[in-house]
Amino acid sequence: MEGKNREQVKPYRKSADYSYTLGAFPTIELIKSKTAKVREVFVHSTFTDAENLAGLCRENGIPLRISDKQIARLSDKENVFVIGVFEKYEQELDTAKSQIVLVNPSNMGNLGTILRTAVGFGIYDIALISPAVDVFNPKVVRSSMGALFRLRHKYFDNFKAYRAQNKEQEVFTFMLNGKKPLTVADCPKPELFTLVFGNEATGLDDMYLDVGTSVIIPQSPDVDSLNLTIAVGIGTYLFTQARAK
Amino acid sequence: MEGKNREQVKPYRKSADYSYTLGAFPTIELIKSKTAKVREVFVHSTFTDAENLAGLCRENGIPLRISDKQIARLSDKENVFVIGVFEKYEQELDTAKSQIVLVNPSNMGNLGTILRTAVGFGIYDIALISPAVDVFNPKVVRSSMGALFRLRHKYFDNFKAYRAQNKEQEVFTFMLNGKKPLTVADCPKPELFTLVFGNEATGLDDMYLDVGTSVIIPQSPDVDSLNLTIAVGIGTYLFTQARAK
Repeated sequence: MEGKNREQVKPYRKSADYSYTLGAFPTIELIKSKTAKVREVFVHSTFTDAENLAGLCRENGIPLRISDKQIARLSDKENVFVIGVFEKYEQELDTAKSQIVLVNPSNMGNLGTILRTAVGFGIYDIALISPAVDVFNPKVVRSSMGALFRLRHKYFDNFKAYRAQNKEQEVFTFMLNGKKPLTVADCPKPELFTLVFGNEATGLDDMYLDVGTSVIIPQSPDVDSLNLTIAVGIGTYLFTQARAK
Repeated sequence: MEGKNREQVKPYRKSADYSYTLGAFPTIELIKSKTAKVREVFVHSTFTDAENLAGLCRENGIPLRISDKQIARLSDKENVFVIGVFEKYEQELDTAKSQIVLVNPSNMGNLGTILRTAVGFGIYDIALISPAVDVFNPKVVRSSMGALFRLRHKYFDNFKAYRAQNKEQEVFTFMLNGKKPLTVADCPKPELFTLVFGNEATGLDDMYLDVGTSVIIPQSPDVDSLNLTIAVGIGTYLFTQARAK
């Protein structure tokens, strides 16, 4: 970085080749998990734990700038003191691992929560079927609490394209008209599985009834459905628990 | 309602004696579950399913007004076509039922999702320990998808005050330093239980280690914690499932 000619980082656009973390916690996750992708870190002049962060950046050869202006420009009115700018990247899934497939997820906060939950239960391979929200949008990164950097993700045009590359997993589709109620007493215990979840508003198309085993989390008639993130949380907990036994 | 002198409903304030639902689905839930509390319903002139709603209002003696202006005023820029105005109410919990206690919940969207999840698993008694967000805020009502109207809720100043009125339940506190890992194979199966969850950012104070049995949902070291709504979802699913066997 050359003094006055330092480049300004612009607010996020999907077409840009970079994105950024909002907040100290996801920024530290970024530096630890995707070190080579970090371009620079911005710190607000009032940030109280700047020394630790400066040390971490120095160790990893990452430029750190104190810039209230740059923070204000990127933080979108939220209370943010640290921002980490990183290069976007592409990945392949690990075809030998259990996976989660999200079909057309449309809410950025939900997607981040789902990524955090997946990593929380030891699932590190996430497929997204397009159209789907942008996993690198700072809102997704933020609500994932940096879990995005711990996992592998990949976009596919459709489920068939996903399945062509990931053939070994036993497939379970979560549907309101699923055939098998998912109970504690009777949860399937496959070694290698793929859990498939639909869009927040529309769920999975009936075509998914014929892909693997369709399951439903038993619920009261007093709600129309469970929230998507809750369904992913319960499904992932159950399948990873069953395997752990 | 007397023609031109109809009162205008103002945007929500915590101190007001009324609140409102945003959207057709929660409004219908309101009319069905809390009929006597509904003051009136507003419909946008472009709403496509107005006839069914008008019938439901007529059956229940609820005034319905077409008012784009009133909708615009209350909807806070969101895409809303139906609003139901209702009187706030106070309730007692059913002391003979299993319950959920939320200690200092601070996020309105989370609270609504938790209410929806509780009803989804058949828990209809929710205690809130103050300070806590306002359950009648339209944002909570909306994210609950109207589940708020299906359950009983009550605010308490502290856990002791809650416990003084609800003595029969076996208490389980969800804590990152909880003593008992909550596994599928080994989940407690009490007939009557209270599940206690802390604030989104701070969790439960260590004082709660001595209140009943402290539990933890096993999770990977790669995340700092699960999202609160996910923890409530998994805990409630497990305890209600265990009981159902």
